[in-house]
Amino acid sequence: MSEKAFQDYYPEKFNQCYGCGSHNPHGHRLKSLWDGEESVAYFTPEPYHMAVPGFVYGGLLASLIDCHSTGTAAAATYREQGRPMDSEPALRFVTASLHVDYLAPTPMNTKLEIRAKVTELTPKKVIVTAKVMADGKVCARGKVVAAQMPDSMLKLVEGDL
Amino acid sequence: MSEKAFQDYYPEKFNQCYGCGSHNPHGHRLKSLWDGEESVAYFTPEPYHMAVPGFVYGGLLASLIDCHSTGTAAAATYREQGRPMDSEPALRFVTASLHVDYLAPTPMNTKLEIRAKVTELTPKKVIVTAKVMADGKVCARGKVVAAQMPDSMLKLVEGDL
Repeated sequence: MSEKAFQDYYPEKFNQCYGCGSHNPHGHRLKSLWDGEESVAYFTPEPYHMAVPGFVYGGLLASLIDCHSTGTAAAATYREQGRPMDSEPALRFVTASLHVDYLAPTPMNTKLEIRAKVTELTPKKVIVTAKVMADGKVCARGKVVAAQMPDSMLKLVEGDL
Repeated sequence: MSEKAFQDYYPEKFNQCYGCGSHNPHGHRLKSLWDGEESVAYFTPEPYHMAVPGFVYGGLLASLIDCHSTGTAAAATYREQGRPMDSEPALRFVTASLHVDYLAPTPMNTKLEIRAKVTELTPKKVIVTAKVMADGKVCARGKVVAAQMPDSMLKLVEGDL
């Protein structure tokens, strides 16, 4: 397992994401790493991230799956191209679609483990499947279609907003 | 359009949700109302709810679709049964699955409109489709399968945790 997370390679303007941006002080600041062919991230929900007392809010699980999967999509594409994540041109992915199946209530007060793997990788899109586990039990499964950020959006972000 | 939101009928123990609980001071406190056959909610993202500068975080949109849709599922079931939302037995829905298609980048600094309608309603589950609009443009479409909360979970929530 490498020590520098995928998100630590994002340049500053792309590192503001509420879910995984290192530069967003209000957000979750998710950190994703390779663990062999899978990627892994850990997150401990805050007490207020609840759905009902005792159980984690599903929107948070969707968010964790989303950010971990788009980060994995970027990391996998760099790896496919045989180049480091801080090399140019930078790859930026957005979520085209997100699907989550909630399999079991997710208990509070435990560190969640989010694991993902790439099931399809093309130059324009990457499909990633993910699961969220609490105490070793799979509570949610997700599938994300991540697409390279459209040029029109890229220009707006890179411009002076 | 009625004045009291769906979520305002939830009893206290079921009103802690990060996405829509009136009693969660840290959360989004989404309020959903009927507007004819559709339900509607509005939400203005905070500046930190960003994906990249200028655009809203997709995990937030997924969360809004989730909470608005499960609230709509409960409200529609009460309506189907011809009884008010504060009548017993209380109906509690959880998300079985959530799907979101992100159609266009969602701009920051604008009030989002979330609209949903029920496409299938059975005693055990309700299927809801939803869309998120910014400045009248549909930025995301969602589909939620909402299921009545399992008895095992209900007992845990209603017990002393």
